Amino acid sequence: MQILVVNPNTTQTMTATIAAAAKGVAAASTEIVAVTSPMGPASIEGYYDEALAVPGLLIEIARGEKAGAQAAVIACFDDTGLDAARALAGIPVLGICEAALATTAFVARRFAVVTTMERSRLPVEALVERYGMKDRCNVRAADIPVLSLEDPASNARERLRAEIAAALAQDRAEAIVLGCAGMADLAAELTHEFGCPVVDGVSAAVKQAEALIALNLSTAKRGAYARPVDKTYTGLLSAFAPQELLGNG
Amino acid sequence: MQILVVNPNTTQTMTATIAAAAKGVAAASTEIVAVTSPMGPASIEGYYDEALAVPGLLIEIARGEKAGAQAAVIACFDDTGLDAARALAGIPVLGICEAALATTAFVARRFAVVTTMERSRLPVEALVERYGMKDRCNVRAADIPVLSLEDPASNARERLRAEIAAALAQDRAEAIVLGCAGMADLAAELTHEFGCPVVDGVSAAVKQAEALIALNLSTAKRGAYARPVDKTYTGLLSAFAPQELLGNG
Amino acid sequence: MQILVVNPNTTQTMTATIAAAAKGVAAASTEIVAVTSPMGPASIEGYYDEALAVPGLLIEIARGEKAGAQAAVIACFDDTGLDAARALAGIPVLGICEAALATTAFVARRFAVVTTMERSRLPVEALVERYGMKDRCNVRAADIPVLSLEDPASNARERLRAEIAAALAQDRAEAIVLGCAGMADLAAELTHEFGCPVVDGVSAAVKQAEALIALNLSTAKRGAYARPVDKTYTGLLSAFAPQELLGNG
Amino acid sequence: MQILVVNPNTTQTMTATIAAAAKGVAAASTEIVAVTSPMGPASIEGYYDEALAVPGLLIEIARGEKAGAQAAVIACFDDTGLDAARALAGIPVLGICEAALATTAFVARRFAVVTTMERSRLPVEALVERYGMKDRCNVRAADIPVLSLEDPASNARERLRAEIAAALAQDRAEAIVLGCAGMADLAAELTHEFGCPVVDGVSAAVKQAEALIALNLSTAKRGAYARPVDKTYTGLLSAFAPQELLGNG
Amino acid sequence: MQILVVNPNTTQTMTATIAAAAKGVAAASTEIVAVTSPMGPASIEGYYDEALAVPGLLIEIARGEKAGAQAAVIACFDDTGLDAARALAGIPVLGICEAALATTAFVARRFAVVTTMERSRLPVEALVERYGMKDRCNVRAADIPVLSLEDPASNARERLRAEIAAALAQDRAEAIVLGCAGMADLAAELTHEFGCPVVDGVSAAVKQAEALIALNLSTAKRGAYARPVDKTYTGLLSAFAPQELLGNG
Amino acid sequence: MQILVVNPNTTQTMTATIAAAAKGVAAASTEIVAVTSPMGPASIEGYYDEALAVPGLLIEIARGEKAGAQAAVIACFDDTGLDAARALAGIPVLGICEAALATTAFVARRFAVVTTMERSRLPVEALVERYGMKDRCNVRAADIPVLSLEDPASNARERLRAEIAAALAQDRAEAIVLGCAGMADLAAELTHEFGCPVVDGVSAAVKQAEALIALNLSTAKRGAYARPVDKTYTGLLSAFAPQELLGNG
Repeated sequence: MQILVVNPNTTQTMTATIAAAAKGVAAASTEIVAVTSPMGPASIEGYYDEALAVPGLLIEIARGEKAGAQAAVIACFDDTGLDAARALAGIPVLGICEAALATTAFVARRFAVVTTMERSRLPVEALVERYGMKDRCNVRAADIPVLSLEDPASNARERLRAEIAAALAQDRAEAIVLGCAGMADLAAELTHEFGCPVVDGVSAAVKQAEALIALNLSTAKRGAYARPVDKTYTGLLSAFAPQELLGNG
Repeated sequence: MQILVVNPNTTQTMTATIAAAAKGVAAASTEIVAVTSPMGPASIEGYYDEALAVPGLLIEIARGEKAGAQAAVIACFDDTGLDAARALAGIPVLGICEAALATTAFVARRFAVVTTMERSRLPVEALVERYGMKDRCNVRAADIPVLSLEDPASNARERLRAEIAAALAQDRAEAIVLGCAGMADLAAELTHEFGCPVVDGVSAAVKQAEALIALNLSTAKRGAYARPVDKTYTGLLSAFAPQELLGNG
Repeated sequence: MQILVVNPNTTQTMTATIAAAAKGVAAASTEIVAVTSPMGPASIEGYYDEALAVPGLLIEIARGEKAGAQAAVIACFDDTGLDAARALAGIPVLGICEAALATTAFVARRFAVVTTMERSRLPVEALVERYGMKDRCNVRAADIPVLSLEDPASNARERLRAEIAAALAQDRAEAIVLGCAGMADLAAELTHEFGCPVVDGVSAAVKQAEALIALNLSTAKRGAYARPVDKTYTGLLSAFAPQELLGNG
Repeated sequence: MQILVVNPNTTQTMTATIAAAAKGVAAASTEIVAVTSPMGPASIEGYYDEALAVPGLLIEIARGEKAGAQAAVIACFDDTGLDAARALAGIPVLGICEAALATTAFVARRFAVVTTMERSRLPVEALVERYGMKDRCNVRAADIPVLSLEDPASNARERLRAEIAAALAQDRAEAIVLGCAGMADLAAELTHEFGCPVVDGVSAAVKQAEALIALNLSTAKRGAYARPVDKTYTGLLSAFAPQELLGNG
Repeated sequence: MQILVVNPNTTQTMTATIAAAAKGVAAASTEIVAVTSPMGPASIEGYYDEALAVPGLLIEIARGEKAGAQAAVIACFDDTGLDAARALAGIPVLGICEAALATTAFVARRFAVVTTMERSRLPVEALVERYGMKDRCNVRAADIPVLSLEDPASNARERLRAEIAAALAQDRAEAIVLGCAGMADLAAELTHEFGCPVVDGVSAAVKQAEALIALNLSTAKRGAYARPVDKTYTGLLSAFAPQELLGNG
Repeated sequence: MQILVVNPNTTQTMTATIAAAAKGVAAASTEIVAVTSPMGPASIEGYYDEALAVPGLLIEIARGEKAGAQAAVIACFDDTGLDAARALAGIPVLGICEAALATTAFVARRFAVVTTMERSRLPVEALVERYGMKDRCNVRAADIPVLSLEDPASNARERLRAEIAAALAQDRAEAIVLGCAGMADLAAELTHEFGCPVVDGVSAAVKQAEALIALNLSTAKRGAYARPVDKTYTGLLSAFAPQELLGNG
């Protein structure tokens, strides 16, 4: 099996963290291909960055599928471009927020997501509602810039711990979801420290991708995720016409 | 007052239809500046086109605000890039779906949106839910490609009429919302024909924009729509770094 | 354009405050006709007053329409008698709560209403749910009697300020809606003071009324708002038979 | 025990039907006092009539409580003025829609209300949502004027039967609620005919009123149903000032 | 009238408390038959105990109906086995949570349940949602083991009082529901003490059972509560085959 | 890895079908241990059978965990006893409805469950709501007794096909979930036949169980799924006291 993991921001050190988490849980027979988006923001913090991370993501999804990937993972917790990627791709595509929530729901009735910045909280809350978890999952922001997770001198990890503690004490959370791909290396350590399930979305998505491949399931192509209609694309984005990225339909 | 109306697809004939509708309802003192996106898809049909229409839209929002617009309207019924545009802009930004639903809700308890293609139906249903109208508004697709609305030889307008008739007869709809900017020229005629309110989103958004300007209201900048964080943007999209588009924060 | 603004309580000083707010935002070509209900309670605080304010309101709606008004505004934040007025009138009718929420939703994802007394909180919460804003808007009561807003010796305005500050600090509110027509004169001052949008319903409703008139929209008359059925009305209320108020149908 | 049953429309023959239903199920020790509203519409069909039926209802609630009633029933299926009556009264007050839905929910998972006219359907749907039954109860209108139920020459009862049959066949309804006080005499006959529970709201409300009296429960007076604030009432409605109807607080 | 009241745990002292509460509110003509489950847990605290209390409950429901009961009450606040009992029985069956919530909703807009242990809180919250009360009722756990309510040396009653006080002060509760059958003897005393309605589910269910009998209503047998299909049951539970418990269908 | 798959009904031929499906998708390193409940109903059709299938299920969960299983699957589509099993077990426990819905949600926006009998439809709808899929998944019943799926002479499979076709044509379903463990052998064939994803819950649950084991996740034990409290169990079920099944806590 080959699974494509796309980091939709352009920071390669974060791709390395993500790749390590993915490889750490992948089956022996699974090859993880981790790539960094070739264009767009260095980190995704709020609606503006999210929108501009999508073109680079879509390029990598199309390229990865042509290169033989059997499933793809979008390694950003706002599930950047998930619907567009599903319409584009023939292979199944997973968001790490979606995968983390679905996985955690098997082991806890109530849980909490701890994400980075306040401006990311509302988009994540919208995902929690979209995925049907609004009544059992609340979202907290630890007020840490995404790239500070990469910086050993920052106090980002202490803030994260404090917010997890608050979620367990005040929100009746029984388990924790780490709300940023850049936290992927912390799940095991925090599980041990807090004595409750702490779920990383990258790891969860890799296992879900393996499951979909084994079950021989791919995205339904009738309805919302039908192949994009061929048409003219112009300007800077002319290479994104469906017939360009996918070949003639 | 100057109101910017952005057509986020790249088809200039559609911009002309939109501009005419906007000017038709604007106050005497309002200047309508209608522009066409400089990049991306010729029409927006489904999630893939929608995602790739956003960069061109954002360019025009930033340019229009610098040129003196006091409010902006996004003239595509899937409210393309609305959240990203609101985070980017200092001026208020309106989607035509949002404006049409809010306006129609003042004159009918139950109503229906009639949109173009089946693949656009689910995204519009998600907007209807986001704007709090799920229990009073249902969405129908007339199965017409967007650009066929521009083509006098197509039967697009007959299909639209048939779907409106079905909404009134079967859905307990008391009013109709036209679910595509390309239908903007039809509202008056259909209102007369069906004897019920038929609302065009472009017109509704222009009046809402005038209202916001008169009320001296702009997008709240604490929380979800805070100014994007300055950071490195790379590759094809390097010009979209917030400090590039907006100037240093 | 002529817009009727009805104060459904019988306190004329409050009508003056409302009229000033309405005229302050109306277009140059709009005539505001502000009237006071001829019967019922001096202020509307809770379900009992609300029910008994409706007959006087309906009298004024019918009278105003006959006198040439093209739209009507009900200037009480519990949207007193809105459904009955819509069924009665041929012209569009707006509630100030409805108009304020719809307007604020264009400029903020989350916001708060600050109303007067605890007993008005639950009815306003019911309106927030009816208008589809339950997940993004919470309601606070500042515990101030309505008429104390007219009294310079009361501390009503200080309590209002304290509650606004609490909404911004504790509820993730990005904007504030003033939950009483008697607060209409405070919006500009509070916007400046708190640095966030502060919306007055009377002003918002006047602009929405102008928009509906310009868009040539009136209440749908199939379904919930069909003209009342002619029938015998008796006793104190015999003058309210539809055929009396409206003329024979 | 004395239970007040108020018919909020002014048609005395309907009061007789209601009184018979109430007496038919009351305990031997219960005295039913059935009264007709002294003012307002001859029947309640839609929002306009409903609003104008409230003052007459409130008069009778206040009068009945002073005369010794221990509970009151509002015998109109739109639960006319229920919140205002609860704020006014010291004794418990029940709506027949509310009582019918609560009772039917004990004996069926899914059920349907069959009401009279289309314009009453939406208000009843709003009650079904308010009482928490939206996911298990749908509402049908048989398209029959309320007073035609009193007219042996009309085909109202045949239409009612046809709509019940449709609810059982098409809506997965397991039981039926009769959606008009004027149908109170039909429940037993229709239960036998259709072989499923058919619930009349007047009967249900009388038994709920007896239950509340036996349990020594009355309306909570903290919060939404606090006693109305004493204040000036003017004009035609001057007699409705709380201190007039209730005595000084 | 004969009403069966089943205590689904096996603790006879609790049955005595329940029987006293039931008899305290029953009509003079009602015979209360209170029985204790013959098998399963001594108290029901959480999902595991709840599941294993069902077989004993079903035995008693079947036995009681054969012995002439006209309605049955399940006297445990998690409404143990309610759906299975309704499918089994010909007579109406009531849960005490369901009955308490429906009754309290007639006298308060907002209220709170105070139950025993944290692990029972989530199941009760699920019932509150099922019965349509989620927006007006919250659930608190006083952290008291069920059987400690029977123990005069425990501080269970003080903890219960403290939690009621917190619900009134912090949750905008206007009334209280006692969330355990073992609290049935406390309702009158707490009503007096807190000056608001305090509702016991056993008492409420008895009155609802009397109401259903008087209204001649029984569980609908089309749909979810159809008679169980006859089939082989094996092992320890072979006596539970429907044809065994009910006789051949 | 060892995964326990429990058939909670007592029909061994159905266990064989389930075991084959489980083994068909399990990883090479996974051992499937499929067992049949030792007590209770031969098939689970509706609430009554479901309740009485739980004790046998719990016995097998406890036995399987002691014997070394690292995860357990409950192979009945009503997720029989899932909450009780999660409270009991130390290992993760999966229901096949839950697993199928979560898996299908990764590959389709809208989908349908096709289950067996009408009386199972409402319980499955309740699960769909519990798992947050109400707005995107509807439930159909093919009106086939569970055991007829094992009978080559029945027309059960034709009815199933007809219902799938109806879901695709009428419900906007993009994918199908097979709503009975006894259909586990049909997924591949139906996927090919209908050209859309057709998901079997047993297969999905096995892959989800493997994912949870690989992610080192087990059920959270704070809150709803805390270990059952040790206490006396009596009568036929005395062996189910937690301290008996689990050993002293």
